[in-house]
Amino acid sequence: MRKTTGWHVDGPSTTLRLTPLERRDLRPDDLAVRVDFCGVCHSDLHAVNARDGDHPLVPGHEFTGVVTETGPAVTRFTAGDPVAVGNIVDSCGECAMCRTGQENFCHAFPTLTYGGVDRHDGSTTLGAYSREYVVRDRFAHLLPVGLDPAAAAPLLCAGITVWEPLHALGVGPGTRVAVAGLGGLGHLAVKMAVALGADTSVISRSADKATDARRLGAQGFIVSTDPEQMADARDRFDVVIDTISAPHDLGPYLRLVSMDGTLSHLGYLGPVTVETTDLLIGRKKLSSAGSGGRPATAAMLDFCGEHGITADIELLPSARVNEALDRLRRNDVRYRFVLDMSDLD
Amino acid sequence: MRKTTGWHVDGPSTTLRLTPLERRDLRPDDLAVRVDFCGVCHSDLHAVNARDGDHPLVPGHEFTGVVTETGPAVTRFTAGDPVAVGNIVDSCGECAMCRTGQENFCHAFPTLTYGGVDRHDGSTTLGAYSREYVVRDRFAHLLPVGLDPAAAAPLLCAGITVWEPLHALGVGPGTRVAVAGLGGLGHLAVKMAVALGADTSVISRSADKATDARRLGAQGFIVSTDPEQMADARDRFDVVIDTISAPHDLGPYLRLVSMDGTLSHLGYLGPVTVETTDLLIGRKKLSSAGSGGRPATAAMLDFCGEHGITADIELLPSARVNEALDRLRRNDVRYRFVLDMSDLD
Repeated sequence: MRKTTGWHVDGPSTTLRLTPLERRDLRPDDLAVRVDFCGVCHSDLHAVNARDGDHPLVPGHEFTGVVTETGPAVTRFTAGDPVAVGNIVDSCGECAMCRTGQENFCHAFPTLTYGGVDRHDGSTTLGAYSREYVVRDRFAHLLPVGLDPAAAAPLLCAGITVWEPLHALGVGPGTRVAVAGLGGLGHLAVKMAVALGADTSVISRSADKATDARRLGAQGFIVSTDPEQMADARDRFDVVIDTISAPHDLGPYLRLVSMDGTLSHLGYLGPVTVETTDLLIGRKKLSSAGSGGRPATAAMLDFCGEHGITADIELLPSARVNEALDRLRRNDVRYRFVLDMSDLD
Repeated sequence: MRKTTGWHVDGPSTTLRLTPLERRDLRPDDLAVRVDFCGVCHSDLHAVNARDGDHPLVPGHEFTGVVTETGPAVTRFTAGDPVAVGNIVDSCGECAMCRTGQENFCHAFPTLTYGGVDRHDGSTTLGAYSREYVVRDRFAHLLPVGLDPAAAAPLLCAGITVWEPLHALGVGPGTRVAVAGLGGLGHLAVKMAVALGADTSVISRSADKATDARRLGAQGFIVSTDPEQMADARDRFDVVIDTISAPHDLGPYLRLVSMDGTLSHLGYLGPVTVETTDLLIGRKKLSSAGSGGRPATAAMLDFCGEHGITADIELLPSARVNEALDRLRRNDVRYRFVLDMSDLD
């Protein structure tokens, strides 16, 4: 086994502590990656809070780094390549979903980057709040030239999660897009929608983020707590990307969707309740998204490389991971924490 | 005022009784219609049960009949024309929805055929369980030649309600459609989907309706209470039209929808809860539908005329309206009751 270190929770605490970790010896199609930067995703917070106690948890599923070693069957990568890895590190490869490149919907369930079950040895996967990760080559992507590897790390989860609905819903020049919630997901949705040529607005609880929204390229800004502004925006948007991370009433956001348009709900998992009349009136659609398959991830990275899109980040040494999680819990970040793993050397 | 009779509920009872009714004198753009046949819709049952006691309720919003008189500004109809009227009899005509022919989504709310508020005199509209109805000409449709006027009456509510999503979702040759629930809505959805060239299946709680489903043209039949059949059908359908009239878990039906497909929920109004993962996995969409605008209603009637599509009905003299409602309450009808109003002469 390979030796490394990483940040884990164990015992009754939700404080992450540094611990020695083992990674598997390379299989023929494996890469060893030196993790340089790992984004702090909202789902890391959920995982830490919901830790079931059965095993130590090492979070982290949006990271960039450099290939240090390759298995003998690897042809697409060589040591020294800058790579990026997201929240899926394996899938069955045989079901209809895998065959169409939607490994995130693998019928046999994809192997998650942490807290997943390795398909070969049955071990529980440990995430990238760590100095090394071993990953099957198919699930690593070359990082496009010119993108800052720290700011690019969040593209691999937040980025692909917002790219999927923008792409699937055909957002492009002339599309009217509103992004509800300007956080880790939302600010990337705005950047991508603007770069796709869409007429893009931000919906936020207060006017605090109006300046930021315009800086990110949004043409419009709607304060969701102002009934007059919400009424004025009724039926205005072909696509509403709802990235609000707490459970909330979808009705006010559905009412902003135009005839035959779609509300894509990304902010959290769990049950959502809608009034059928909010869908019926205007023939609106509700969808959801999270993560993406390999081809979509590659396309998203190409697009971001071409348009110079990365996340707006606050970079912290990995030793400050608990501070990052605390502040994320209070939504005190603009817009994504990224951990610099070089302090683990 | 014009004199007629109709079936109404008044006082604490939910039994309909025959009563004299008044209809307005014709406005310039009004038609007087002798109501020959009126379908018994599930929403009539809800309305009777939920009657607020403020005024007598006369149900009935899917009917056919013959024009007996026209206002001086009417040019599209003349006395003797066979016509059909649905659940909307007026709208503002000026909002964005009305301008695109979606009067059912009128921002100022459409005038419903019964229990609505007339836009000119503020009176409460009385439905078509009656021998005469007075309707603005724009909201009447010529009944296509060759369609039985009794069996065609349900097209005006049940028919347009299923036509809207089939049409909006682009159902045609090669589309895989499943219809959940084989009742008033469902059996028309099957007939229309088959006529549109779709590969059509029925999902029903028991195998009782398998023979009927095949007679209606369905190629497939799935028993929803058989876990094996439901598992086999996972991800199989581009479109699932859910016409089940009681609240139920949408999850099992969403899981039958294929990648990027849609579940259209038509069976009842009110809140529905879905697990976001049931939408997320396979990038599925939830929509709803009910009623339709004037252009879609005209297109639906043309299509039904061309393909000889009407409802499978049980025709009763209007004096048996209470028996019809009782049996509908128990789902004891294949597949729509229609009241013959000639017994009111």
